[in-house]
Amino acid sequence: MSVPTLLVLDDDPLPRLGRLTGRARVEHADATTLAERLPSADVLLVWDFTSTAVRDAWPGEGPRPRWVHTASAGVDHLMCPELADSDTVVTNARGVFDQPIAEYVAALVLTMAKDLPRTLELQREGVWRHRESQRVAGTRACVVGSGPIGRAIVAALKALGITTALVGRRSRTGIHGPDDLGRLMARADWVIAAAPLTDETRGMFDARRFGMMQPSARFINIGRGQLVVEQALVEALTKRWIAGAALDVFETEPLPPDSPLWHVPGLIVSPHMSGDTVGWRDELSAQFVEMYERWEAGRSLTNVVDKQRGYVPGH
Amino acid sequence: MSVPTLLVLDDDPLPRLGRLTGRARVEHADATTLAERLPSADVLLVWDFTSTAVRDAWPGEGPRPRWVHTASAGVDHLMCPELADSDTVVTNARGVFDQPIAEYVAALVLTMAKDLPRTLELQREGVWRHRESQRVAGTRACVVGSGPIGRAIVAALKALGITTALVGRRSRTGIHGPDDLGRLMARADWVIAAAPLTDETRGMFDARRFGMMQPSARFINIGRGQLVVEQALVEALTKRWIAGAALDVFETEPLPPDSPLWHVPGLIVSPHMSGDTVGWRDELSAQFVEMYERWEAGRSLTNVVDKQRGYVPGH
Repeated sequence: MSVPTLLVLDDDPLPRLGRLTGRARVEHADATTLAERLPSADVLLVWDFTSTAVRDAWPGEGPRPRWVHTASAGVDHLMCPELADSDTVVTNARGVFDQPIAEYVAALVLTMAKDLPRTLELQREGVWRHRESQRVAGTRACVVGSGPIGRAIVAALKALGITTALVGRRSRTGIHGPDDLGRLMARADWVIAAAPLTDETRGMFDARRFGMMQPSARFINIGRGQLVVEQALVEALTKRWIAGAALDVFETEPLPPDSPLWHVPGLIVSPHMSGDTVGWRDELSAQFVEMYERWEAGRSLTNVVDKQRGYVPGH
Repeated sequence: MSVPTLLVLDDDPLPRLGRLTGRARVEHADATTLAERLPSADVLLVWDFTSTAVRDAWPGEGPRPRWVHTASAGVDHLMCPELADSDTVVTNARGVFDQPIAEYVAALVLTMAKDLPRTLELQREGVWRHRESQRVAGTRACVVGSGPIGRAIVAALKALGITTALVGRRSRTGIHGPDDLGRLMARADWVIAAAPLTDETRGMFDARRFGMMQPSARFINIGRGQLVVEQALVEALTKRWIAGAALDVFETEPLPPDSPLWHVPGLIVSPHMSGDTVGWRDELSAQFVEMYERWEAGRSLTNVVDKQRGYVPGH
């Protein structure tokens, strides 16, 4: 049996694939060479998960990888109709980011409740100004997205004494369906976007939805930028419809230096880092190597994405 | 029976004592009038807990209040040998601040782990710079002070998956004695000062103790400023003996505008607000009214301070 060709859509630093030595012919590609190399690859590892090169380079018919793995939770950057309709299996990094992102959301919730951004501003000015801050225990959160990330966020917020509601694509035990979203957002102190980007979720947080929120409530997006109509959020903050927001993801990343989003009062901007804790790249590498070994042995893959829906279906 | 005189060492806004109408003759004093009015008071409510006026005005012999209550957890601002040696009962606001302070410490720990102060700096500059941040789950915290505040901090940090050690004045079940402090600080990722200010704890966090900490570790003080030798902390931060610190309390409060502490790299300065969540003054008022009713009925008071030790002894 010939050694399979593993094509890596590059990023720096490279994945650690040493354990696959002799078991995979590792080749590398970037956006300019991907189209040329894809037909001869058995497996594609999308290590540069910020790239949309796969969508552009995917061959319509003819030879193509049998398996594509992306080192990310979302698959929105690589899915295209040709890939969705093909028999190529797509897997994702489900599991690696859950706990880090949940901690990050807890950090944002507490930071906003305790008014720490203002504290840091006053410190810079050398001004001692005592303020009252908020308890988080007893507040209400609405977490949108019922995958492992959303569920980890719920667990982290519950541990802080926050009452949580989880909203998914359809109603089931412990999870609200989309019909409940308006009612839940209207009474939430925290609305947290953790859904995958799909046709159903694109732009779901718009002026109408922000208008439903309480003036004291805050919005957090750690999912995908396109879940949010950014201009509507800016207006909701500017007009004080809501009290604050934190975005870790954006329609355009990196956020351009001249974006007005950098300087909206009450908005915390972070550079898509919520899941990226020390060692995350090693975890992503280890996860892929383990999956490769399953694939090599002819065992069924885990984390298989429903390519029509755009995520790994849960229970 | 005559109506007891309740003297309030003022602060703005005043306590809500409406329920005591007709049951206490409420008089007010400030630092300049306290000495004159103390002898005729039955009860003193130290509502302005930042004031050291009691220490200065306390009558050596002769008439004095039978009961002094302070609307604070610490009693260091009012204790003096004459008060300690008298038969006047001193009570504190034990219980009101535990959960708010625990949330505040959780906020600081997560803020530092997720590098949020740097994120806010980069946002101000409009710079997108992805960094790796730290998981808090699996890290180790050493909480110094085994009263209700220290124990609430331990519970909050445990809920985040942090391994905790609690250090008190003496070793007992679940609590380490002072002999273990060096060893515990040496392996902690987070050292949190939550002890009362007493002769034993004054200046306990000094150059020697900061020198024991790991270079990656961080120090948080929400107890009393005088627990820390501030100059030693500044040096520890400047020389990178430790990775960061957050102070909510200071030797001198308010921190003077020209204090170098405002601008030490890696140090978060907040204005003694960790326990002060919305409604805190109402809670302090309600707690005092309830205690007054016990006192009025001749029942034994709760939260009685051991005046020699300087805090309410635990189990």
